[in-house]
Amino acid sequence: MTKFMDVHHGMEGITADQLHQAHQADLAIESDENVHFESAWADPESGTVYCLSEAPSADAVQRVHERAGHKADEIHAVPLSV
Amino acid sequence: MTKFMDVHHGMEGITADQLHQAHQADLAIESDENVHFESAWADPESGTVYCLSEAPSADAVQRVHERAGHKADEIHAVPLSV
Repeated sequence: MTKFMDVHHGMEGITADQLHQAHQADLAIESDENVHFESAWADPESGTVYCLSEAPSADAVQRVHERAGHKADEIHAVPLSV
Repeated sequence: MTKFMDVHHGMEGITADQLHQAHQADLAIESDENVHFESAWADPESGTVYCLSEAPSADAVQRVHERAGHKADEIHAVPLSV
């Protein structure tokens, strides 16, 4: 398993409730792909959302996000962390 | 105080040790600006590094990073998180 940071653009004006619902939608189906979404952070002004996950692959992360209705624009493996 | 996610590009091949040293350099001077760098994640392949911090402003985050020798390419306030 590896940690991934994925990035969504175009979510200008996202609200706390919308972020919560999107995260819950991921959590509801993530186990199908052996993915776990740990945290997400959102900047409503620039419309940027960052999601930190642990997953077997970037494709698995994207499949969960896609099924939940919010494909990621970027997905980076982040094997190093402090 | 607000949480910020900042992004560094161009760090292809960054090692665990280099990430650790960079983070330590931030931690050593962060209190001068009332900033706290909580976590950082790195993708040596794309050269992308993400840093999560809590700070009074984006400028304060950049001043610490700049003095530590690694200016950020992007800094986003992320007032929303899950």
